Amino acid sequence: MKIAVDAMGGDFSPREAVRGGLQAVTEKNLHIIFVGREQEIREELTASGYQGDLQARVSIVDAPEVITMDEHPATAVRRKRNSSIVVANRLVKEGEADAVVSAGNTGAAMAASLLTLGRIPGIARPAIAIPMPTLRGVTILLDAGANADCDPRDLLQFGLMGSIYAEAIMGIDSPRVGLLSIGEEEAKGNRLVLESHQLFKKSSLNFTGNIEGQDLPKGLCDVAVCDGFVGNIVLKLTEGIAGVLFQQIKEILTGSLRGKAAALLIKTGLQSLRSQMDYAEYGGAPLLGVQGITIISHGRSKAKAFKNAVLFGAKAVEEDLVARIQQAVEDYRETAKKVKE
Amino acid sequence: MKIAVDAMGGDFSPREAVRGGLQAVTEKNLHIIFVGREQEIREELTASGYQGDLQARVSIVDAPEVITMDEHPATAVRRKRNSSIVVANRLVKEGEADAVVSAGNTGAAMAASLLTLGRIPGIARPAIAIPMPTLRGVTILLDAGANADCDPRDLLQFGLMGSIYAEAIMGIDSPRVGLLSIGEEEAKGNRLVLESHQLFKKSSLNFTGNIEGQDLPKGLCDVAVCDGFVGNIVLKLTEGIAGVLFQQIKEILTGSLRGKAAALLIKTGLQSLRSQMDYAEYGGAPLLGVQGITIISHGRSKAKAFKNAVLFGAKAVEEDLVARIQQAVEDYRETAKKVKE
Repeated sequence: MKIAVDAMGGDFSPREAVRGGLQAVTEKNLHIIFVGREQEIREELTASGYQGDLQARVSIVDAPEVITMDEHPATAVRRKRNSSIVVANRLVKEGEADAVVSAGNTGAAMAASLLTLGRIPGIARPAIAIPMPTLRGVTILLDAGANADCDPRDLLQFGLMGSIYAEAIMGIDSPRVGLLSIGEEEAKGNRLVLESHQLFKKSSLNFTGNIEGQDLPKGLCDVAVCDGFVGNIVLKLTEGIAGVLFQQIKEILTGSLRGKAAALLIKTGLQSLRSQMDYAEYGGAPLLGVQGITIISHGRSKAKAFKNAVLFGAKAVEEDLVARIQQAVEDYRETAKKVKE
Repeated sequence: MKIAVDAMGGDFSPREAVRGGLQAVTEKNLHIIFVGREQEIREELTASGYQGDLQARVSIVDAPEVITMDEHPATAVRRKRNSSIVVANRLVKEGEADAVVSAGNTGAAMAASLLTLGRIPGIARPAIAIPMPTLRGVTILLDAGANADCDPRDLLQFGLMGSIYAEAIMGIDSPRVGLLSIGEEEAKGNRLVLESHQLFKKSSLNFTGNIEGQDLPKGLCDVAVCDGFVGNIVLKLTEGIAGVLFQQIKEILTGSLRGKAAALLIKTGLQSLRSQMDYAEYGGAPLLGVQGITIISHGRSKAKAFKNAVLFGAKAVEEDLVARIQQAVEDYRETAKKVKE
């Protein structure tokens, strides 16, 4: 299996992308194609001191252009045909790679996949599916930001895709799917959610009803569905609150002698709590609904996050995620057609 | 000044409502009218052992009906004309009270105020303005749930009302108003926010642009504007994440001897962090845009939260919040008219 890594994407590229890719190759029998400025990648590879068997499982595809964080995504993707993210997606399209990982400009990563790989037939809008840490493990939140405005059919497709993802990648039988809303009752929500609720009820999903904001961190459902505007705010707010709280706890634990003594006693516990909240543990989020495996990673990804993103992509390939989503969409359309007849 | 307290509203009524009202009267020279089942209120008053001067500053208005948490708000308000929340609002309408505080069914509290007091002329939709704790103090978030679907004009009015509130109650000169969105750039957001952004830019508000989810807890603006669907999810998610994190920290601090030793060392610091995140410190949220002062409190309010809600209501009366909002709306319409001419 071959995974293409956009070596120029992310705040610490190419260094962390290269190191993470190498870590993944050490852990799993796969081939990494680093895509980006060849010279820079080669220097990082040399600096990392990789050798022996690893060398045979690593290659470089030169892509001299880079799309920066402040460029307009679709325009940049159309203009910079030789940028790392566009070339990496082209490798998947042409069968040279099985999946692509990028921590670059999220909009550009999405646009490159959409324009290069195309959508799965029947899917109106691909969505970013983010694993959110909860008390009980992880809830898949989608859409986390690909589509600011959605209609009820989009939300239903997000539910279908999220459900397949939870089943295939997380091994959850009949995942519980919830609609993010402002009350548990069917009659609570905005117009979009009220209409979507009716579609979800009629679907084959294991729909457990509306889920409220306070219940999301409790892990009351495996898949939480919302539009990309709400999802992106939820994602970033969660990161923001956790960051602020940990910062304040850190101040308590470093601001006085008593605090420092306490820190020594509970260091391990706090570290494990912190790592449970850490995106790097999950590595990235797939863009579900495109004709290929695209993993979008956090811009601040370090080697560990890149490694996990690569392993995650490999798992999605092994589990045939794209074909399973395609099948689910076809099944749903068949059922809908029969109901109509 | 007379504050009407819905003594039957909230999970711990009438006990906590009565105790909180009495605490407020002890702290500030005002008169409390407890509204609800007279006998039950009288028993709580007796049990609390209030006496002397306090007795002269407390009265009861009997309201035999109660609207429960699971009733349909508007229907219940129309049917139960003698419910505590409806009677309490009627007292304000008739000039018998200057403000009303309720921790009951939020929808019913809103409906009672809307139907009884009516809207300020020119305001299309009243909004709930919640003080959210941040690193730098407090950000007013509105709408926190009164209106699930909004248009750009609604959001602009929320901005105007929130700005007046921050100025009048929090004493902030020229409050920084932000639009909650999924990117700082003007071109980021859903249709509602993109259109609203243009209205905000042209307004007299101190508009600081879009604010993202992760920046909300950092207190980068004094007033954050969004529709009631997003606002309610933000509010509840914040509560949920803080709850889950504190629960996990508590487990670390009680799960082992080392943890217990650490707990003794940092107890004070953690308690102050916890109380900073606590809604009880802020007491409640005004429903801005109605013709009177209505403070909506958390259903789980205890005495302290009721006390703070009453004091908050008193402050809003002193600062003439309703008249100031009315003036701001008129000024805005005047300006808009002139621009058109």
